[in-house]
Amino acid sequence: MDHKTTISNDGKIVLQTILNRRSIRNYIPNKPIPQDVLYELIKAGMAAPTAKNRQPWAFIAITDSNILKKLGNILPHGKMLAEAGGAIVVCGDMTQTLEGAGGDFWIQDCAAASENIMIASQAFGLGAVWVGIYPNKFIGVENVIKMNKVLNLPGSVIALNVISLGYPDSDEKPKDKYDESKIHLNSWK
Amino acid sequence: MDHKTTISNDGKIVLQTILNRRSIRNYIPNKPIPQDVLYELIKAGMAAPTAKNRQPWAFIAITDSNILKKLGNILPHGKMLAEAGGAIVVCGDMTQTLEGAGGDFWIQDCAAASENIMIASQAFGLGAVWVGIYPNKFIGVENVIKMNKVLNLPGSVIALNVISLGYPDSDEKPKDKYDESKIHLNSWK
Repeated sequence: MDHKTTISNDGKIVLQTILNRRSIRNYIPNKPIPQDVLYELIKAGMAAPTAKNRQPWAFIAITDSNILKKLGNILPHGKMLAEAGGAIVVCGDMTQTLEGAGGDFWIQDCAAASENIMIASQAFGLGAVWVGIYPNKFIGVENVIKMNKVLNLPGSVIALNVISLGYPDSDEKPKDKYDESKIHLNSWK
Repeated sequence: MDHKTTISNDGKIVLQTILNRRSIRNYIPNKPIPQDVLYELIKAGMAAPTAKNRQPWAFIAITDSNILKKLGNILPHGKMLAEAGGAIVVCGDMTQTLEGAGGDFWIQDCAAASENIMIASQAFGLGAVWVGIYPNKFIGVENVIKMNKVLNLPGSVIALNVISLGYPDSDEKPKDKYDESKIHLNSWK
């Protein structure tokens, strides 16, 4: 499609960053990400919208390489954490969720926060990959129990994912996942 | 916290866009958003990560003001749609989801795509609000049935939300939702 639309130069930079983001699993081994960068990324996460503004989330910023190595051993889809420079665990806080029918909105809220963190990581020139933890059966309940022990998570807190972060060790090309057949105009056809 | 970190100027623009985004419900009434802009926003949505790269999503781009008005009447949390300049319905395609324990990852995948669309809207200078549709009981199953009829949605497709879009009719200040008490360093304390 032709790009016929007016967009500012700043807007173009933002759009391109979103389009260029891709999962990065290979890092300069264990090159530490400063704590204040992790906190800036989490701040971006907290700028996400949440249903009824409940902000039912909590975050663990991991800088300790021993904990990263432990998580890399525990999580079958998270082996790259062993060489990561840091990580952020995005959690739902069940004491803060909506009551009743909206109770599960925490999943969408925390997913939106996670995507903000992914894009902000790209803005910092970092590589990131979203390691899904919840629903727990997918990654293995016994692994989640081990992880929760390492992180000292209380029972009222559910980890949605672990975002593994590092300095990319090579240039990986963005993927183009655009598929116009998945777009319908005005109603389903 | 002091910002001690190296970040490029482009990166700063991206970060600031994420932090400035907020829900915008008031628009210049019915000023239409060009179809190609909606498609650019959806393209940004499709750049989101998905579990096992399944991309279990579908999108309806709405430019027709009659449909927008109908949705504004049907959806109790979506009244602003009646004056919107366009909308995007982000859907899960149940024929594309993971089998078994990972079946519900479509919710997170579509939420991540939605957040990309929210940030891309901000990049285009548009105002956006995420009107939650799923889980359906929250907004009323009977309303969802009516909406699905207007959109001609097949039974295999579930609308996660409707993103209402328009040209903001005033400058609304960004909210600061940063709360450091929700961050834990290395493990829960």
